[in-house]
Amino acid sequence: MTAPLSALPHHDGSAGYRVRPDAISLGDEVTVRVRVPHAVGDAAPSHGAYDGVWVRSTPDGEPAYVALRRGAEDGQAVWWEGELAVRNPVQRYRFLLVRGTGAQQEQHWLSASGLHTRDVPDAEDFVVSVHTPAPDWGRDGVVYQIFPDRFARSDRAAERPTPAWARPATSWDEPPVFGHPDEPLHFFGGDLDGITDHLDHIAEVGADIVYTTPLFPGESNHRYNASTFDAIDPLLGGDEALVRLVEAVHARGWRMLGDLTSNHTGDSHEWFRRALADPSSAERGFYFFDEDGDYECWQGYRTLPKLDHTDPELTRRFHAVVRRWLEPPYSLDGWRIDVANMTGRRAATDVARDVARALRATVTGVRPDGLVLAEHGHDASGDLDGDGWHGTMNYYGFSFPVWTWLRNPDRAVPSFGLPVGTARRSGPEAFGAMRAFGARFGWDAVQTSWNILSSHDSPRIRTLTGSAERHHVAAGLQFTLPGVPMIFAGDELGFEGTTGEDSRRTMPWDRAAEWDRTTLELYAALSALRREHAALRRGSLRWLAIEDDAVAWVREHPEGDVVVAAWRAGATLSVELPASPPTLVTGAHDTGARARGPAFAVWTP
Amino acid sequence: MTAPLSALPHHDGSAGYRVRPDAISLGDEVTVRVRVPHAVGDAAPSHGAYDGVWVRSTPDGEPAYVALRRGAEDGQAVWWEGELAVRNPVQRYRFLLVRGTGAQQEQHWLSASGLHTRDVPDAEDFVVSVHTPAPDWGRDGVVYQIFPDRFARSDRAAERPTPAWARPATSWDEPPVFGHPDEPLHFFGGDLDGITDHLDHIAEVGADIVYTTPLFPGESNHRYNASTFDAIDPLLGGDEALVRLVEAVHARGWRMLGDLTSNHTGDSHEWFRRALADPSSAERGFYFFDEDGDYECWQGYRTLPKLDHTDPELTRRFHAVVRRWLEPPYSLDGWRIDVANMTGRRAATDVARDVARALRATVTGVRPDGLVLAEHGHDASGDLDGDGWHGTMNYYGFSFPVWTWLRNPDRAVPSFGLPVGTARRSGPEAFGAMRAFGARFGWDAVQTSWNILSSHDSPRIRTLTGSAERHHVAAGLQFTLPGVPMIFAGDELGFEGTTGEDSRRTMPWDRAAEWDRTTLELYAALSALRREHAALRRGSLRWLAIEDDAVAWVREHPEGDVVVAAWRAGATLSVELPASPPTLVTGAHDTGARARGPAFAVWTP
Repeated sequence: MTAPLSALPHHDGSAGYRVRPDAISLGDEVTVRVRVPHAVGDAAPSHGAYDGVWVRSTPDGEPAYVALRRGAEDGQAVWWEGELAVRNPVQRYRFLLVRGTGAQQEQHWLSASGLHTRDVPDAEDFVVSVHTPAPDWGRDGVVYQIFPDRFARSDRAAERPTPAWARPATSWDEPPVFGHPDEPLHFFGGDLDGITDHLDHIAEVGADIVYTTPLFPGESNHRYNASTFDAIDPLLGGDEALVRLVEAVHARGWRMLGDLTSNHTGDSHEWFRRALADPSSAERGFYFFDEDGDYECWQGYRTLPKLDHTDPELTRRFHAVVRRWLEPPYSLDGWRIDVANMTGRRAATDVARDVARALRATVTGVRPDGLVLAEHGHDASGDLDGDGWHGTMNYYGFSFPVWTWLRNPDRAVPSFGLPVGTARRSGPEAFGAMRAFGARFGWDAVQTSWNILSSHDSPRIRTLTGSAERHHVAAGLQFTLPGVPMIFAGDELGFEGTTGEDSRRTMPWDRAAEWDRTTLELYAALSALRREHAALRRGSLRWLAIEDDAVAWVREHPEGDVVVAAWRAGATLSVELPASPPTLVTGAHDTGARARGPAFAVWTP
Repeated sequence: MTAPLSALPHHDGSAGYRVRPDAISLGDEVTVRVRVPHAVGDAAPSHGAYDGVWVRSTPDGEPAYVALRRGAEDGQAVWWEGELAVRNPVQRYRFLLVRGTGAQQEQHWLSASGLHTRDVPDAEDFVVSVHTPAPDWGRDGVVYQIFPDRFARSDRAAERPTPAWARPATSWDEPPVFGHPDEPLHFFGGDLDGITDHLDHIAEVGADIVYTTPLFPGESNHRYNASTFDAIDPLLGGDEALVRLVEAVHARGWRMLGDLTSNHTGDSHEWFRRALADPSSAERGFYFFDEDGDYECWQGYRTLPKLDHTDPELTRRFHAVVRRWLEPPYSLDGWRIDVANMTGRRAATDVARDVARALRATVTGVRPDGLVLAEHGHDASGDLDGDGWHGTMNYYGFSFPVWTWLRNPDRAVPSFGLPVGTARRSGPEAFGAMRAFGARFGWDAVQTSWNILSSHDSPRIRTLTGSAERHHVAAGLQFTLPGVPMIFAGDELGFEGTTGEDSRRTMPWDRAAEWDRTTLELYAALSALRREHAALRRGSLRWLAIEDDAVAWVREHPEGDVVVAAWRAGATLSVELPASPPTLVTGAHDTGARARGPAFAVWTP
C-alpha cells in the first residue's frame, strides 16, 4: 500500500460512519458509510478513487454482499453508503472496494484493521452488536485508580490496631517493599475516609470514575486474597466508610467501581475454611479439591484457591455478592473483574463466556447503567462486543503499543507479563498492533476499554518512558485515542516504579517537593479537553500518518473534528497539519507537522 | 522484515518441529522445536541469529512462558527446543525470540502466520489439540469429486424412464444448460454403475477417495434438494448400485464419501411434506415455520426449507441417517457436509459448533476412522482443530490464493461467491492470505482440508488460468502444499467452465479429441509423487521465497526433504535452488531458480 494513510478509504463505528437506531434489534437496518478520498492527481477527482463499493457480511454464516451507492461528496472525498441488515446478534462486516475493469481491476478489502490488498480472515472485520453498549458514563468518563493502602490515611486510621499479619510501615513516606517476601505485608494503613478526604484532588485531575482495588478484608495490603465478600475491611473503615465514600462520589455526579476477584478467594476466606474443615459442606464444591484434599489455585499460590463456576451454589452466592454491593446503601456503579481471563477456565472446562454473560446480566439487572470491566492478560477479543464484559483493561491494545513506541530509547526498561523487558517498536509496528487488537475488539468495546499507562500491576509510565517529555506524549495518547483513560493515582504527579509493587507508592500529600505540577496540569488540561469535545469521546479514529517517530490522526464528530499529532522524537510528518497554534501542546512542537523532540499537539475546532 | 524468508526461524506442526505422543491427553508434554538459521555474515554463526527463545501459551487463559534450550545444530541452523505442557483441549502457542541486550534488544514473535516484529493477537498462534486428528486416509489420500449426473451412464441407465421434472439432454455430448431456469433440470442420466465402470480412470489419475455429490433423490440434477434421506435415487441405480460401487471402491483399498445436506432438505422431502400437511406433526418442528405458515429457507429458495437443529427429534432422525449409510451394506467412509457454515445458524440461534461436534461423534462412533469434511463459504477457523469438522473445503485458504495468483493476466475471469471477478494478486498477497488462513485453521486441519482448484460450484481452473501452462502450475501447488488434493472430475482432462453449473460437463468417454492427455499424465505423476514421498503428505512447510511471480518452499520430513518451486511467469527467484534436474517438471523451467514462463518443479531426495 503506497498511498499515504490519509488517502485511504475509512469506516469505523462512530456516528458519521454508522448510522443506527439507538437500540438495535435483529432485523434492523444500519446505514454504513465509507469515506473514499478523491484520487490524488486524478483528472476527474469527483469520481473518487474507487468505482464500486460493497458491504460484505456473513448473515447466518454465509457471505452476502450489498452494493453501496455514491452519496454525499465534498472537496476531499466521496461517501458511499448503504444498508446493512442486522441478522445476527454480533455481526461482522467489511467492505469490498473495486477500481478499474477487466483484467486490470483492483480489489481491496477495508476491515477494522485497515485497507488490505489481499484476502483476510474475518476476525478483524468491523462488528455491530445488538447488545446494549456500556452506559454513557462508562464510555465518556475518566477513571482514577486507587490502591487504598497507599492513597491516604484519614484521621480515623490512627485509632486502628495494626493487624497481626502486617509488617507496618514506620512512616507514610517510606518506599514500598518489593521483590521481597514481605511485599504483600508492608502495610501503610490508607483507608476509605482518606479517599473521601481527597476527592478534590481527583477533581483537579479531572477524573469522574473512582475505581479502588479490593476493599474486602484479606491478609495482605492488596486484598486480592479476600477472606470474605460480605464486609468491607475494618482496616479501611468498614461498610460505613464505603457508604460515606460512595455518597461523596455520587454527590459530585461521579461513579464508583469496586474490584471483584471472581477467579479465586484467599485461603482465609470463610467459604474456603468451611470447605477445608468439612469435605461434605456445600462450600467444598466451590473449589477444585482432588482426592488427596489438594486444591487448584491461582498460578500455584496456595493462598489463592480457585473458584469453580460450574457449581450452582457458588453461582448463587457469588451473584448475591455481585448484587449486594451495587444496592443501597453501598451503591457501587459496577465492578472491575479481576483475572477475568482465567475465570471459569480450567483444563477441559471453559465456562468463561457463560460467567461473563451471567455477571453482566446480574449487574445490569440491579442497575441498567451498571458496568462490568474485565482485567485481561492477553487477547480479550473473544468476550467483547457481545453480552459479556463491556470492556477490558486494554494492556494489549493500548498500553503495550504506547509503551513500545515511547519507551526510553537509551536503556532497557522493565515490562509487564513478559520474561524480557519492553521492546522498542517503530510507529508502524506499535500502532499496527493497536489497530489489530482494536479491530478484534470492535468499536464499542474499544470505546469502553481502559487506556492504561500504568496500573498497580505494572511499571510506571514515567519509568518506562524515562523522561517527563515522553510521559507527557503518552498522556496525550491516553486521552485522545478511543478508550477510557485510567489514571493510576500518582501518574499525574510523575511517580516512578519498576514493578507493580514498586509502583504502589504512597501519595505525597505532605511532600510538596514530590509534586510534579507540570504533569498534573497536563492531566487536568487533557481531561478538560476530553470533556469539552465530543470528538475525543465518541468521534471516529481516522489515521492521517503512522511513521517511525510520529503519528497523526483525526477524530471526526458532527460537533466538530479534532486533529491530534504525537512525536516521540524530532521529526516532520509527511502529512499536512494545521498551521494554526494547537489548542493544547506539550513538548518540542515546532509548527504543523514538525517537532524538534518529543511533542504532542491537539487542534480543536 | 528485510531478511529473506529462508533466513527466518520456523516452526509448524510437522514431525521435525513438534514431537508428541500419538494420542495427546491433558497433562501431556509436547516437545516443540524452532529452527533458527545462522545469522548471515555473522562472525560467530554457530550462535544462531537469536540469543533466547521462549514458547508462550495461555493455559487456562493466562499467558505463560517456558524458556527453550539450544539443541542440535548443523551448518545451516540451530534448533531450540523445550516442552509445552498441554493444559487445555485446544491450546494455542507461539514463540518469543530475542536478540541483543539492553536498550537495543530486539523481540520478535513467531506465530503460524510467520515472524512478526510487532505484537499480534492470538488467533494466528500455532495450535495443538487433544482431539484425535482425521484418519490417516483422510490426510494422505487424493479425492476425486464426481457429480453423478454427468460422470458416466451405465448400460442399466438406458432402461430407466426420464423423471417428470427433468428436461432430458438429447445427447450425452451436449453442453450443460446454465444461466437459465432449466439449469437444475437438464438431465443426462449418469448413474452409480457408471462410476463403478470407470474406476480404472480414477486409478489412472491416482486418486483413492471417491466423493460423490448427493445420491438421495431430489427433483434436480444436483440432488441438493433431497426428497428423502432413506433411499438412494433409483435414477442412480438405487441402494444396490451404491453397494456395488462401495464394494468396488473398497476392493481397491480406496475410500468413499457421501454428501449430506445438513442445512436444508428439498420441499419434496417426506419430512417437509408431513410438516406442511400436519402442523401438529413432529416434522413441523424440524423446520422454521412462522405463524403464517411461512418457513425459513436457504438463500430465499422456497424449494430448500432450512432444518432446525435445536429440535431433539430432528437430531435423533438426522443422526440415524448419518449412521445408516456408514453401516453395512452401504459402508460409506464418511460425509462431506453441505453448507456446514450455515447449519445450525439462524438469527439469534447459533448451535453450529454443537452440531459439528455431535455429527463428528456419531460418525466416529460408527467407524473410528470416519471422516467429516465441511463445506464452508468463508473463514472456517472457528470449527477446526477441535472436536468439530475434521477439515474443510479450503476455498479461502487454498483455492482463492491460487486462483488470484495464477489467473489469466490478460482478461477478466469469473469468480466464486463474489460480486466481481477474481482479482489478480502478487505472490506476497496471495500466499500471505494462504498463510493467514492456514494459521487460523491449525496444522492438523490444514493437512485434512481439501486443496481445490475447481468444484461443481466454481469455475474450472483451466478457465480461470486461461492456459494449460498455468493450469499445470496450479495442479503442482494442489499436490505439493499441505492439504488433500480434491480433483473435480474433468480437471485432469482440461475441462473449461465459467460457473459451477457450466463446469458440470459430461466426461468425454467417447470423445477422444477432448482428452488433454498431457494434463492427465501430469495429474497421474503428481499423485504418484505425493504417494511416494511422505514429505509431500506430512512434511513441514518452510517457505524459501515468496516473490511476485515465483515462490519456493521445502517440505521437510525424516524420510527426506522435498523442494518445490512455482513460477506464474518468467522470473528468477532470489533464493538458491538445486542445480540438478528436477524429479518432476512442467512448463518453461530453465535451471535452479530460473524459469522463462509458467513453470513448476519438484526436487526429491
